[in-house]
Amino acid sequence: MPAEKESIRVAMVGQRFMGRAHSNALHQVGRFFDGPLVPILDTVAGRDRGALDAFAERWGWQRTTTRWRSIAADPRIELVDLVTPNHLHAEQAVAMLEANKHVACEKPLAGTLADARAMRDAAARAKGVRTFVWFHYRRCPALATAWRLVREGRIGRVYHVRATYLQSWGGADTPMSWRFRKKTAGSGALGDLGSHLVDLARFLTGDEVREVRGAVLANFIQRRPSEDGRGMGRSNVDDAASFLCVMRSGATASFEATRVAGPHHNAHSIELNGEEGSLRFEFDRMNDLLVHDASLDVGSAGWRRIQCTHAGAHPYADAWWPDGHGLGYEHGFVNMLADILAELGGGRARLPLPDFEDAYRTQRVLEAATISAREGCAVPLSEVR
Amino acid sequence: MPAEKESIRVAMVGQRFMGRAHSNALHQVGRFFDGPLVPILDTVAGRDRGALDAFAERWGWQRTTTRWRSIAADPRIELVDLVTPNHLHAEQAVAMLEANKHVACEKPLAGTLADARAMRDAAARAKGVRTFVWFHYRRCPALATAWRLVREGRIGRVYHVRATYLQSWGGADTPMSWRFRKKTAGSGALGDLGSHLVDLARFLTGDEVREVRGAVLANFIQRRPSEDGRGMGRSNVDDAASFLCVMRSGATASFEATRVAGPHHNAHSIELNGEEGSLRFEFDRMNDLLVHDASLDVGSAGWRRIQCTHAGAHPYADAWWPDGHGLGYEHGFVNMLADILAELGGGRARLPLPDFEDAYRTQRVLEAATISAREGCAVPLSEVR
Amino acid sequence: MPAEKESIRVAMVGQRFMGRAHSNALHQVGRFFDGPLVPILDTVAGRDRGALDAFAERWGWQRTTTRWRSIAADPRIELVDLVTPNHLHAEQAVAMLEANKHVACEKPLAGTLADARAMRDAAARAKGVRTFVWFHYRRCPALATAWRLVREGRIGRVYHVRATYLQSWGGADTPMSWRFRKKTAGSGALGDLGSHLVDLARFLTGDEVREVRGAVLANFIQRRPSEDGRGMGRSNVDDAASFLCVMRSGATASFEATRVAGPHHNAHSIELNGEEGSLRFEFDRMNDLLVHDASLDVGSAGWRRIQCTHAGAHPYADAWWPDGHGLGYEHGFVNMLADILAELGGGRARLPLPDFEDAYRTQRVLEAATISAREGCAVPLSEVR
Amino acid sequence: MPAEKESIRVAMVGQRFMGRAHSNALHQVGRFFDGPLVPILDTVAGRDRGALDAFAERWGWQRTTTRWRSIAADPRIELVDLVTPNHLHAEQAVAMLEANKHVACEKPLAGTLADARAMRDAAARAKGVRTFVWFHYRRCPALATAWRLVREGRIGRVYHVRATYLQSWGGADTPMSWRFRKKTAGSGALGDLGSHLVDLARFLTGDEVREVRGAVLANFIQRRPSEDGRGMGRSNVDDAASFLCVMRSGATASFEATRVAGPHHNAHSIELNGEEGSLRFEFDRMNDLLVHDASLDVGSAGWRRIQCTHAGAHPYADAWWPDGHGLGYEHGFVNMLADILAELGGGRARLPLPDFEDAYRTQRVLEAATISAREGCAVPLSEVR
Repeated sequence: MPAEKESIRVAMVGQRFMGRAHSNALHQVGRFFDGPLVPILDTVAGRDRGALDAFAERWGWQRTTTRWRSIAADPRIELVDLVTPNHLHAEQAVAMLEANKHVACEKPLAGTLADARAMRDAAARAKGVRTFVWFHYRRCPALATAWRLVREGRIGRVYHVRATYLQSWGGADTPMSWRFRKKTAGSGALGDLGSHLVDLARFLTGDEVREVRGAVLANFIQRRPSEDGRGMGRSNVDDAASFLCVMRSGATASFEATRVAGPHHNAHSIELNGEEGSLRFEFDRMNDLLVHDASLDVGSAGWRRIQCTHAGAHPYADAWWPDGHGLGYEHGFVNMLADILAELGGGRARLPLPDFEDAYRTQRVLEAATISAREGCAVPLSEVR
Repeated sequence: MPAEKESIRVAMVGQRFMGRAHSNALHQVGRFFDGPLVPILDTVAGRDRGALDAFAERWGWQRTTTRWRSIAADPRIELVDLVTPNHLHAEQAVAMLEANKHVACEKPLAGTLADARAMRDAAARAKGVRTFVWFHYRRCPALATAWRLVREGRIGRVYHVRATYLQSWGGADTPMSWRFRKKTAGSGALGDLGSHLVDLARFLTGDEVREVRGAVLANFIQRRPSEDGRGMGRSNVDDAASFLCVMRSGATASFEATRVAGPHHNAHSIELNGEEGSLRFEFDRMNDLLVHDASLDVGSAGWRRIQCTHAGAHPYADAWWPDGHGLGYEHGFVNMLADILAELGGGRARLPLPDFEDAYRTQRVLEAATISAREGCAVPLSEVR
Repeated sequence: MPAEKESIRVAMVGQRFMGRAHSNALHQVGRFFDGPLVPILDTVAGRDRGALDAFAERWGWQRTTTRWRSIAADPRIELVDLVTPNHLHAEQAVAMLEANKHVACEKPLAGTLADARAMRDAAARAKGVRTFVWFHYRRCPALATAWRLVREGRIGRVYHVRATYLQSWGGADTPMSWRFRKKTAGSGALGDLGSHLVDLARFLTGDEVREVRGAVLANFIQRRPSEDGRGMGRSNVDDAASFLCVMRSGATASFEATRVAGPHHNAHSIELNGEEGSLRFEFDRMNDLLVHDASLDVGSAGWRRIQCTHAGAHPYADAWWPDGHGLGYEHGFVNMLADILAELGGGRARLPLPDFEDAYRTQRVLEAATISAREGCAVPLSEVR
Repeated sequence: MPAEKESIRVAMVGQRFMGRAHSNALHQVGRFFDGPLVPILDTVAGRDRGALDAFAERWGWQRTTTRWRSIAADPRIELVDLVTPNHLHAEQAVAMLEANKHVACEKPLAGTLADARAMRDAAARAKGVRTFVWFHYRRCPALATAWRLVREGRIGRVYHVRATYLQSWGGADTPMSWRFRKKTAGSGALGDLGSHLVDLARFLTGDEVREVRGAVLANFIQRRPSEDGRGMGRSNVDDAASFLCVMRSGATASFEATRVAGPHHNAHSIELNGEEGSLRFEFDRMNDLLVHDASLDVGSAGWRRIQCTHAGAHPYADAWWPDGHGLGYEHGFVNMLADILAELGGGRARLPLPDFEDAYRTQRVLEAATISAREGCAVPLSEVR
């Protein structure tokens, strides 16, 4: 890297699926983006010593620790990346913030609203540090393009938001994990997938949910093979979550997140219908954005499929490949990391980055959905804090 | 027609959009289907004398009347087809049933639950006559195939029903009509489009809605150009209706009907996700059904697109054209009429036909959605009668 | 019908698949279109007396005959519709033209170029009568829209034409019929399906094929069950035909027609790529046209899917149903008949109608492909007359 | 990396678009795959000193050289990766092979058949070294799955191969580059894109082209802005290439490659129709494979869309992300490199790797197409050596 670039020492807590995706981003960002900061993969923390060493070796982390608090105590570390189960986010994030480190945390912000609130408050108290939450889909070029088009006034008054996140891996044969326990995950599909839906709806529209009008949290499968394969465990989170909202603007917004929708592996979609235009994104065709311009005469209007791979026209596309040579799942993490490093290095992100305050607002919607599902009534967001 | 076929004298009340679709079906049914009864287009009733005569001449109706009650009094008429605005259904249907005529009524059954109840009760009292409600989408070959596949156990326990009916004709420039007045229509998108969604969800699953968990009826556009073009009128029905339900089986069911979803002209879709399989239909590709078989290994499973145009395999396909030579919108009416005539002639419909009792159950769901939207609470169906 | 309309007596020779489609059009045209002429279904000719009578009764033909020449001799008949196997077209058409009748003939114009030439010449000699060839896809609203857009200069200089007609009904189990015999059909997929491709390419571009650069006629299946089920018959036409052309403009044009493409039942598609724009049609979504406007900036351009169902914007749409309530296979015949009757009644067709001269030009391309396949060389169209 | 892994020193000649893709693969392969060899990015060669140094720094190459022959002379280098313009392949590859190095060469193998033959012969003469050609699409998981399905007999006798590679970047505004000069590129779309089509057709079917039946090489745009922006240059390669073939099995095979197909940025597609089944791939949805099983009853059969992202079921999927979290363009290079390193380390590639002999056969087809286009006749492959 050019000599004038500064570096930033990074530590990561956790090392599973998301640990890979984040480590990959830390390596890729410098090759594809010209940013002010070069990340150094300093320390990775985990609980399983054997797995941790193998992980560190494969992914080029310089050190390992089984005591995450040692990272808080290490003055060299500037940015801490949390990829742990939801119930650990609050304790870890607060400790890191109090140690004056920037914190990037996996979504959802927390398993409970109380935890999320503690994190939001700690972030507000901390001076000179930044927080980030990995709602990486915002940085899928097609969704980033959608955000820009809304900002340009292309859809006008919004009538409808319609968002689904359909997966299928959560059938009765899938063994227990922390994701199926309320204690560790807080919720099931609601927090895991629904948080992305709410974040995107808020991000794209720039609007907030006014009220959850109704909700269902369905726990279809209550017993699963235990993790060690010797017996059954109790799965007590929602396999599926649906909730119906009204935005402050009056737009209707429907959300559905599920782990038991057979044909869908990662069918994350969102559509906005507005008075002037509409937008639609489907992760199964993640490089494309569908755009409808209502100002065209009705005989000419229709969904226009834009491949968001054009350098100069679509955010992040200039960093990658020629037109039509699309990106995959992990690129959203690299794109987001490029923006995090830009901001930490004194520059500007291409698009707004979600921080703890922002993610706390998303968490309030999830909480309102939970209350609505339990109580059988509409829940105004103003009552959930 | 062969001499041994019997005929049935039909009268129709109303003559607009649906009048055309039904008249067409009355002509086409005998050419494409071999049924026991030949319909005679005897009398059409309407209020506008000039339009009525032109309509009768074009569509081959033998007589016209501006007094629909004269049809009830005409002993030659055996089947009355009602294609009038919703608020007229009850009075007309009850009169025809009391005059001992079979009645086929456009959907929704009525504008209000009280009307629907009166119709259901009149049907129950009437002896020797049948009632039908024009939920014609059941007879789209792809949806008829879906119904069969569910009956064969191909999807198993149902987790999710997801149905939308998205249109775009109801923007602020669209002038007033009976469809925008609560008094004549009862509701807007809810009854007009939502009734199809609920009918299909009930028909395909064979299950009933247990509870409406939440609902929004959005009246975005409250003033429109008046019908005569001189001023503005008050549009006081829902432009869009969303409601979230739980079925008796525990399945979640989400419904959205709207007239202001820009890119969609008639995007009627329904998807069922079950433990053993999934099905998906989109009217924009009305000849196709998407089928997912969860018993395949996960590396081979995926949506299979079946063109439901094969005689011998797909209901109604034998009546029409060779494989792949698809049908259009109006064919559902012809297919349904073939089944109505089959039953009136002593035979059997290919698939269950919706009667007033059946449509009344759909109407109860619409009513529960209306209450839920108004009260901001969940509404068990058991409380709506 | 209004008294001021004139009628035209029609006879039809043949009564199979196409006999149904044409009879249907004769009934439907008057109900959906306001034309100057009302067709009277006077006489239908066929060879199988029993089938003929049943057909005539079902479809409302007033008379039947097993001697088609009697139609030529009947001075009341003004328009003769030929839906017979290809090898009969020439004799029948010439006889009808010489008897001074308008002739509408199924495609391809003939089984051989010599026959086609004879028909073209007879049409040129005949005075005061018109000829038509049933290339009905021109009148699919989406393709009619495509034609208009090309006329408006929306695609500019054409670089590529890419057309396929993929069917699957011609496997080894399919029994013999006239369609599999060279003597009766002239060719297989080439004439049956390829003629549509060439007609559309010529119609949409307004250009002519300059040269066939290469061709393959593949006769994969040479023995099939005989028609009577007792033994095998010899199938000696092409199951598939591919040919590569250059248009006069220099555009490349590739054509593929096949009866053995497993997943495709009637996958008729055509795409035009031009300097200023592109168009794409797929019969499997026959109500839609895909449009690409190259003048948009590259970041905004993409296929725009237009549902060609809007009255006022898309040809023929005003005759049918509201936006988004799509048409099916048979509507192309009704639309074409409306235009035929318009012209015979002194009015104008909405789009150019193919006559024998026009279809002869298409036949020359098919002949050039046949020669190219046989000789293994490029064949300039100027050498095929 | 674990100490027991061996390393292999790699040099690369060239540093543009493909230089990035290959360098990325060299970094990623060790993190996502467990192979026997760790690649060391030793030396990169290029002509522009400034660009070369920046490239080496960004991508982590240890040394640079402007004299590629020094690599041949460097005994430490074991594998040389050629990403230079086509006309340089032969000289460089032959030199490296004579210096006893493994060679991986970008496609097409060469700009001329003579060059390709020289490379094939040099590879045959070289002892103990391997050659590879970067037909990386073979390692797109969906195409790798297609290859396996064909091997398992799922499509039976092949009737049709239909392959297109449609791009749009080559309009009249695009400035000159080596890709537009016959001298440096050999051909235009034919070699650049058509080589992928022919490779895939041969790879998937396991069959060889018997004869090119006809071809068009269209040079629509003959003058372009020069590279330095001061004037115009002469573009003398094919902007588009279409050719029609017959395979040894008798299957028809059509190929179209173009740089001027407006709406398509990288629309690489291939479809195989066989007696027992069909397969279809489109790069625009690169994670999916469409599969048709003709043994299903016709009422149930249809394209089944398989997301080829399942570890255990789809080649390479285990190296990456969970189901449905799709890959992008560059992953094919990483997958291919994993296989190259596996073979060089004594293991086995998951699928056959193309070597110079294999790529020479593809080149013969391109040459036959060139002759056919020039001569206007069919060209048997047996005559092109």
